[in-house]
Formats: sequence, structure tokens, C-alpha cells
Amino acid sequence: MISATLMAQIEQKLPPSCRQEAAVLSSVMAGAVSELGIPTGVSNRHVHLSQQDIEALFGAGYQLTPIKELKQPGQFAAKECVTIVGPKGSIQRVRVLGPARPQTQLEVSKADCYTLGIKAPVRESGDLTGSADALLVGAAGYCHLDSKVICAQRHIHMSTQDAARFQVENGQRVKVRAGGGCGVVFEQVVVRVSPSYALEFHIDTDEANAAGIRSGEDVYLAR
Amino acid sequence: MISATLMAQIEQKLPPSCRQEAAVLSSVMAGAVSELGIPTGVSNRHVHLSQQDIEALFGAGYQLTPIKELKQPGQFAAKECVTIVGPKGSIQRVRVLGPARPQTQLEVSKADCYTLGIKAPVRESGDLTGSADALLVGAAGYCHLDSKVICAQRHIHMSTQDAARFQVENGQRVKVRAGGGCGVVFEQVVVRVSPSYALEFHIDTDEANAAGIRSGEDVYLAR
Repeated sequence: MISATLMAQIEQKLPPSCRQEAAVLSSVMAGAVSELGIPTGVSNRHVHLSQQDIEALFGAGYQLTPIKELKQPGQFAAKECVTIVGPKGSIQRVRVLGPARPQTQLEVSKADCYTLGIKAPVRESGDLTGSADALLVGAAGYCHLDSKVICAQRHIHMSTQDAARFQVENGQRVKVRAGGGCGVVFEQVVVRVSPSYALEFHIDTDEANAAGIRSGEDVYLAR
Repeated sequence: MISATLMAQIEQKLPPSCRQEAAVLSSVMAGAVSELGIPTGVSNRHVHLSQQDIEALFGAGYQLTPIKELKQPGQFAAKECVTIVGPKGSIQRVRVLGPARPQTQLEVSKADCYTLGIKAPVRESGDLTGSADALLVGAAGYCHLDSKVICAQRHIHMSTQDAARFQVENGQRVKVRAGGGCGVVFEQVVVRVSPSYALEFHIDTDEANAAGIRSGEDVYLAR
């Protein structure tokens, strides 16, 4: 049996092209439940906007301009960006994701919270009661987000077929092992199942940095 | 047996004063090896300077001004700050830690690397060969850091007595469980033993954010 320390040493000597193979081996050694990989999607700070807020920020009747399809069907990165303003600082060039949603939701990392001077709770998407506030500034105006700012709870999108394959169900909390020999096990990862979802492990930039992983790299369910 | 999910729900309803108790319980449930807590020290970006670089940055014959003792005996935060400049961006007000060392070493997070536009490897302190470069600017001058920038490998400082108590030895890699019900298990945490060390789990801001922990909170060795 290769020890985790030896594995980490071996991994350091592998060419970058072998990174994924090393991650599988490390995860199996660390007690992964399944060798089926789940691709990671690292979410940088972003905002989903209601049509009303789109118009407040960009003008009456304004429509978002899609520039890149996201992995989740129908979702896209828009050309439009906003500035987030908090009591302590601001963050420019924050991407708007489309299409418009019934409710505006700003998703930031904890590092962003320090920059802005706000305390956004870790929440599942849509669970906004008592969440944080911020000011958004767009090309044509601004809007105040009252209880609409969260740090997104890490989660996995799965189709119904994928949920069956992994033997998990909607709402279940699972552990996920991420990274190569110097990895991290994330607890309390929420499984979100919908027929239309593409398989994807969603984490924020703090979490990706801590595990040393990037978008597209596979992670594994752990015991 | 309380499930991890139920524990997380219970924890959300606890007053902040019970946070530490909840973390102990969660860690034991997650398979912690020991209930002996290890206090966390979250390291923001900082630099250790050689006397030569102190003089290049602050003037001939300059001595650092201690303003706060750190937990590790003899170490201090200095009044002096520097600006880090990379090819893509710069970071101001970066704390200098004292006393002067034989070799300058800048420790940043991966998030900082993105800001600066550099690729600092994850390394143990002192292991600088082939590490990253940056420019440091001080009140009286600047110096170029050639292969002196790392992301510090997470580690635990322990006295000889603490190492015996935890049944680990210098250089050993251990797993550490951090956080409450929504925690993280960090793999490949290096144990560093010296008679003079104070017990402390050192991580950077990315790692602290991912686990939802702050300086002073206890973590636990895990299986």
C-alpha cells in the first residue's frame, strides 16, 4: 500500500497531464466510495438578476446579452457586469449570469465578504431570508440588494440518472474528496437532482484554492 | 446516533457561544482520532525579510519595530508593511513579520496569486528552490524576490510534549478536521515539532474560508 505521503511525493514528479490520474488514485486511497468522477465547476462571484433589477441597472426594457453557455442547460454568462459596493469596499467587473430570475441573488465568497465588509451566510440557492445586503451598480443605475447576498453552499448538480448511478437523492448531504495527494474532504455537500441538470460539483474560489483544484477536474464521493 | 445533517441543523440554532462545543461534537462524529483540540492560526499574506532586504526596503541600518507578539515564541508582527507587485496586479499593506531571517520569504494565498499574476507553489517554509518571483516595495526602496514566494503548506506547530501527547512526530503528515457541522478534512498537514513551538494549526485565508473557521478555533486530528 502506497502511503499518502509517498503518493504526494510521487505526484509532485508527475507531468501535469497525469494530474487527473493521480487524483483518482489519491481519492481511492483516501476512501472514496466511488471511482466515478464528478467534474468541478468553480464559481467566481456572480449575480442572478430579476428583470426589474436588470432594468434598474442597465435601463428600461434592457435584455441581457449571452456571451457563453454554462454547463447547466439554459444558463449563460452575460456580457453585462456590475460593481458590488459594501460598507468597507467594492468589487468591480462582477459577472451577471442569465437568464433573468424571479428573484435577484448575489453569490460571493467569504474572501469577498471581507473586502466588502458584509457577512453573507452560507446558504443553498434561493434561501435568502436574513441574508446579507449590498449595493449593485450597473451601466445605467443602481439597486440595493436587501437580504439577497449569500455564500453558496457547496453542492452537486445531478440528473435523475446520475443520482441513481451514485445512489443518492435530492437534498442528501454527502462528502466529497477533491484534489490530488494534498487534498481536502468537503463535508455537507448538498445533492441537487433535476432531470435537466448536468453533473457538476459547484464550489467557490476559496474552496477551490483550499483543495488546489480547478474547473473541469474530477472529484469523488467519499465515505 | 445523530446524523451529520441533523447536527448541522442543530448547530445553526445554537448561540455563537456554543460554536466550539458543536465543533468538538461534529469532529468526534466525523471520526476524529483525538478530542484534544489544536487552536487555529489563520495566516494572512505576510513576509519574512532578511536584514539586507529590510535595509533595501526601509533604509540603511533600519530595524523592524515590533507591534504585536505572535503565538510562536520570539516571533512578532512589525509596524512595517510593504506592497507586493506582480505582473498582473499589486497588493498593498502586506505585513512584515520579525525578527529578520537569514532568507527573505513571502507567503501568499492562491487567491493572492491570481491578483498578482504569479504561480507560487505550495511548499513548506524554507523550501524555496524554484518558487515564484515578485517585487516588494517599501517606504525607502524596493527589492526583487527571485524564487522567494510560496503558498505555505498547511502545518501544525507542536512542542516535543505536544507531539508525545498526540502521538505524532516531526515531519509526519496528518489529517485535520476543521469547522463545525459544515466542516472540512484537510489532508497532508505537516507536523513540525520543536521544543520552543506553541501548539498551533497554521492555514491561509483560502483554507480558513473553505472550512468556515477563524483564528483561535480548535481543530482535531482525524483518521
